[in-house]
Amino acid sequence: MSEPTPVILEEFLKLHPADLADRLQRMELDDAQGVLLSLPRRKAAAGLSEMEFEKAEELLESLTDEQLIGFLPELPHNEIADLLGLLTLGRQRQLLDRLPPEHAQGIRSLLAYSEDSAGGIMTDRFIAIHGDQTVQACMDLLRRRGGTEREDVSYLYVVDRAHKLTGVVPIRELVFAQPDRLIADLMRRDVAFVRVDDDQEEIARRFEHYHYLGLPVLDRHGRLVGIVKATDALEIAREEATEDMQLMVGLSGEERALTPWNKALGRRLPWLYVNLATAFLAAFVVGLFESTIASWTALAIFLPIVAGQGGNAGMQTLTVIIRDMALGELTPGDGRKALIKEAVLGVVNGIAIGIVVGLIGWWWKDSPELGLVAGAAMVLNQIAAALSGVLIPFGLKWFKVDPAMASSIFLTTVTDVAGFFFFLGLGALALKHFVN
Amino acid sequence: MSEPTPVILEEFLKLHPADLADRLQRMELDDAQGVLLSLPRRKAAAGLSEMEFEKAEELLESLTDEQLIGFLPELPHNEIADLLGLLTLGRQRQLLDRLPPEHAQGIRSLLAYSEDSAGGIMTDRFIAIHGDQTVQACMDLLRRRGGTEREDVSYLYVVDRAHKLTGVVPIRELVFAQPDRLIADLMRRDVAFVRVDDDQEEIARRFEHYHYLGLPVLDRHGRLVGIVKATDALEIAREEATEDMQLMVGLSGEERALTPWNKALGRRLPWLYVNLATAFLAAFVVGLFESTIASWTALAIFLPIVAGQGGNAGMQTLTVIIRDMALGELTPGDGRKALIKEAVLGVVNGIAIGIVVGLIGWWWKDSPELGLVAGAAMVLNQIAAALSGVLIPFGLKWFKVDPAMASSIFLTTVTDVAGFFFFLGLGALALKHFVN
Repeated sequence: MSEPTPVILEEFLKLHPADLADRLQRMELDDAQGVLLSLPRRKAAAGLSEMEFEKAEELLESLTDEQLIGFLPELPHNEIADLLGLLTLGRQRQLLDRLPPEHAQGIRSLLAYSEDSAGGIMTDRFIAIHGDQTVQACMDLLRRRGGTEREDVSYLYVVDRAHKLTGVVPIRELVFAQPDRLIADLMRRDVAFVRVDDDQEEIARRFEHYHYLGLPVLDRHGRLVGIVKATDALEIAREEATEDMQLMVGLSGEERALTPWNKALGRRLPWLYVNLATAFLAAFVVGLFESTIASWTALAIFLPIVAGQGGNAGMQTLTVIIRDMALGELTPGDGRKALIKEAVLGVVNGIAIGIVVGLIGWWWKDSPELGLVAGAAMVLNQIAAALSGVLIPFGLKWFKVDPAMASSIFLTTVTDVAGFFFFLGLGALALKHFVN
Repeated sequence: MSEPTPVILEEFLKLHPADLADRLQRMELDDAQGVLLSLPRRKAAAGLSEMEFEKAEELLESLTDEQLIGFLPELPHNEIADLLGLLTLGRQRQLLDRLPPEHAQGIRSLLAYSEDSAGGIMTDRFIAIHGDQTVQACMDLLRRRGGTEREDVSYLYVVDRAHKLTGVVPIRELVFAQPDRLIADLMRRDVAFVRVDDDQEEIARRFEHYHYLGLPVLDRHGRLVGIVKATDALEIAREEATEDMQLMVGLSGEERALTPWNKALGRRLPWLYVNLATAFLAAFVVGLFESTIASWTALAIFLPIVAGQGGNAGMQTLTVIIRDMALGELTPGDGRKALIKEAVLGVVNGIAIGIVVGLIGWWWKDSPELGLVAGAAMVLNQIAAALSGVLIPFGLKWFKVDPAMASSIFLTTVTDVAGFFFFLGLGALALKHFVN
């Protein structure tokens, strides 16, 4: 561990936790550790909780239990649970046993939920009140808690004696309301909520669609156990969007530009092998026409154009479909409509591109036959690309796989195989009947 | 216009505005118009403001000024401005002249800002107070406004007599505070803010990074003119992410699965032509080796594998880089580090894939020379793919173009051209020295 100089430390002290985390992530483990242990606990903890999980994990593992117990209680339970979730079960238990019992219990319940569920993304910091309290009594309560309650609070949740949710009051309405009114008269009873096991992606979609500011999380018995905040849900929506982008091209797990190459390798290479297997399928199709190519080499020159145009058009379709699926904007009936739209586009694009390719083919190799074959193949290829751009994500979904998963790999397989088959097949036919 | 039956209308009345918008979007224009005009104004306006702009535009254009003037004042100014922004300038002016002057002025100032700027995404509904007021006085003020102020309010903004921002008080702190305290003692003076001209993408990044709940928007003179809310900023971040995904494959403008094919065509076909031009570059490279292929046709069979592997590996790199660029997580120094990482990955991936391709090539065509050429070309191609995956987005950025813009088209051009050149070049060499 290397200690930072006072000047550097001074600089770190002034940083926003998110910026502190950025700096820590870019430092050698030793130096990051040194900075963390020299900062005030609260600052260090805030910085740690803003770090990317991969880097935070390394740092946490390098710290002693003693040191961790120093920071952790400064954070809200859900953030402690997120950090503990990076450690081995054994070490988790060890640390939980040393945390103050009132914290440990809350963190243990949060750790029990799946990371991708409402339980995994909710906070257990919320204010629950009863319907028979007056506005004034609530305000007094809040005022007394004012010093300790640092969390952002937009809503008060109204529960009955069994802690079941009965209503909600936006905190701003307390401010606007007459002091002697009863909470029960003020509260909205028709409260949107999520269940503790609900999937985070679905929750994120609901926040995007309905613009909620926060949603209460209920357990199986209807008891209030936490809240999901809009900012957290919307950041998940953003992460899911970029994850889709990565999944499409065969990148599993969140990879960043500076993720070490050896970690990236394990995530990329398997998909490249999948791609290789599918590329051999395309090569096999070309192989079927080896003798055709041997007698008409100009055909080989057009292979990249067939593959390139099919792949690009298919990716356009695929991207549009996956985006709408991710946003939950596609009803079952929409799939058929989208298929028709894409088929029409495929025909029109195909004709528009086929004519150009045909004319260039004719002119370049002075062969009207080549132009005709290339042009016609382009039309068929564009239609195949459009259809597979719709059918592949729907197919993956039907198999209960994320529709984005490696979809570009499957797509280019279809466009290559179909494209080469149409093009070389037509070439073989032309060769038999017209050429020479 | 067709009038909805009372039963259907009943059903629409119960819908959340976001769901109402979904339904309206899926209806024929006539029917949508009928529903809209039969609903209570407030409901109709809320539904209209939730619709996708393309569909909303059609609907707005089909309504008379009279009808629009009926709905519009039910919405907050920023939403009215967004809707008016869809109409021609002439019609905008016409409608603004007929709106109550106190609304018209606010909307006019909002319309003056660029859509992508802070001014374009902010709301002008905020509560400004003075530092010399007491907590009690503020609460009384809020209470009096309670009935009319329906907007979500999380912060009170403290301004001086010139309306310059001097501080901010979270509304929940008013609740927690002693009634006789002065706002000036309570407020935070170190307020983060944005300028009215700041770009929405940059603002979205700041919300993601710092987890703000809202940011005040200041004009050139430091006067408070609006606020940007976290939910709006984070939805923009999400939209930008999906937009990047679309831009990468050559889709300009937000296209949805159900965007009519004729609108989609104009956005997709130009990029397909760009792709065609670049595909001809690759074809030209293949053409350089026509005689090589004529004497060694097996080479043609491996062209799809060269193109496929290069394209997929390059897309993996490209996607990682564009994601980090979009999130503003790449400092200038990171570019060099990323390049080195990708170069290493390219070599390792290349060797791992090259060996497999080489062995299959040898076995399939019973030609160790083919295996050697294909394997070696694969290594070089993977390195080229890795480097261009980094250099293309950085290059686009350097030219002040969105780094995502059609980047997959440029990338596959490089991987095709380089891949074919390496592969066929090595093939030509091998043909000259070893084969036959």
